[in-house]
Amino acid sequence: MEDREISQAVIGRLPRYFRYLGELKDEGVERVSSQDLSRLMKVTASQIRQDFNNFGGFGQQGYGYNVEYLYNEIGKILGIDRQHNFIIIGAGNLGRALGNYMNFERRGFIFCGMFDVDPELIGRDVRGVSVRPMEELEGFIEENNIDIAVLTIPKAGAVSVAERLARTRIKAIWNFAHVDLNVPDRIQVENVHLSDSLMKLSYNINRCAQEQEQP
Amino acid sequence: MEDREISQAVIGRLPRYFRYLGELKDEGVERVSSQDLSRLMKVTASQIRQDFNNFGGFGQQGYGYNVEYLYNEIGKILGIDRQHNFIIIGAGNLGRALGNYMNFERRGFIFCGMFDVDPELIGRDVRGVSVRPMEELEGFIEENNIDIAVLTIPKAGAVSVAERLARTRIKAIWNFAHVDLNVPDRIQVENVHLSDSLMKLSYNINRCAQEQEQP
Repeated sequence: MEDREISQAVIGRLPRYFRYLGELKDEGVERVSSQDLSRLMKVTASQIRQDFNNFGGFGQQGYGYNVEYLYNEIGKILGIDRQHNFIIIGAGNLGRALGNYMNFERRGFIFCGMFDVDPELIGRDVRGVSVRPMEELEGFIEENNIDIAVLTIPKAGAVSVAERLARTRIKAIWNFAHVDLNVPDRIQVENVHLSDSLMKLSYNINRCAQEQEQP
Repeated sequence: MEDREISQAVIGRLPRYFRYLGELKDEGVERVSSQDLSRLMKVTASQIRQDFNNFGGFGQQGYGYNVEYLYNEIGKILGIDRQHNFIIIGAGNLGRALGNYMNFERRGFIFCGMFDVDPELIGRDVRGVSVRPMEELEGFIEENNIDIAVLTIPKAGAVSVAERLARTRIKAIWNFAHVDLNVPDRIQVENVHLSDSLMKLSYNINRCAQEQEQP
């Protein structure tokens, strides 16, 4: 398969293209050149052309890209045209924040269920979805064709929950727990390690301060 | 300055080293070889040595690295040994989740203030910090030596808030709003675009499904 070769770096940039193209589409823009897109997105036009060439180029450059076509094509590549059912494991603040985020629905990600170990949280409602006990996890995944599990629980519980998930039909884990998970290759993992992101910011603050102290 | 040359890719990996070394330290491990670290972290030993060489190598390889020394040195590089005061702008679920996250404090990030435009949220308490109106933003930043602003507000408000922040002493923005910000170079921006991350996951699910359909 052609796209087996496409690097995760390219894949990582696709959602950003999708976002900018969505905005252009909403503004009624019909065509856009790689130069205009380059200015808007602050990446080089050559990078844009190279990235798009991974997917066959999406039409002629001289004439510019058709915004709606490009938006839809990138959406298809990202799988946004399909529906993905997801559950959230961990009904704390972060879990509830993600459950309440309507934009995921617009992208085809459907919030179906929520789980927690805390008896006090069981039965609470998050945007029409009620929090269930962990005992119901496997059955619920099977009955509701769940593809994605979002982990918003502390590190300590995440490893064993990931082991349970690995024995279900789950295709992907969106992991907010501050630990790297060990699951079979057929399960995709995307980590959002918030502390790591904050530390990277901290490094860049200090580097910037040091540079300013230099003569 | 030597570390001006260090790529953001290397910087991006430092927090992960810091996390694993912290765990080893907590387990009482005193020395670790690049081979052991390699097995644990699932990166090559050569990658580890290359990354560490950016910072002078951190001691002899044959004998292994001193875990506590390495942990402290990487912590210093990341600026964890210093205190950074932060505010959160946006007192919704995500803002409150971040405000309640104690681990940031352990890394020297002190949660000092919270702001929102919604009059109903003003005065509410998030872990001892009460939500303030946006009118008090600039004064509060100045009086409390705030370094970092965390943006957990919708896209529409984020751009104008970033413009206000750009006129303050703020050194960094941790941006959760689904938009790229345009601020002066002296302000570091670290984006956490959750929808982008979810779309990358979606791409990988579909790619994996397609591969399984191949003969």
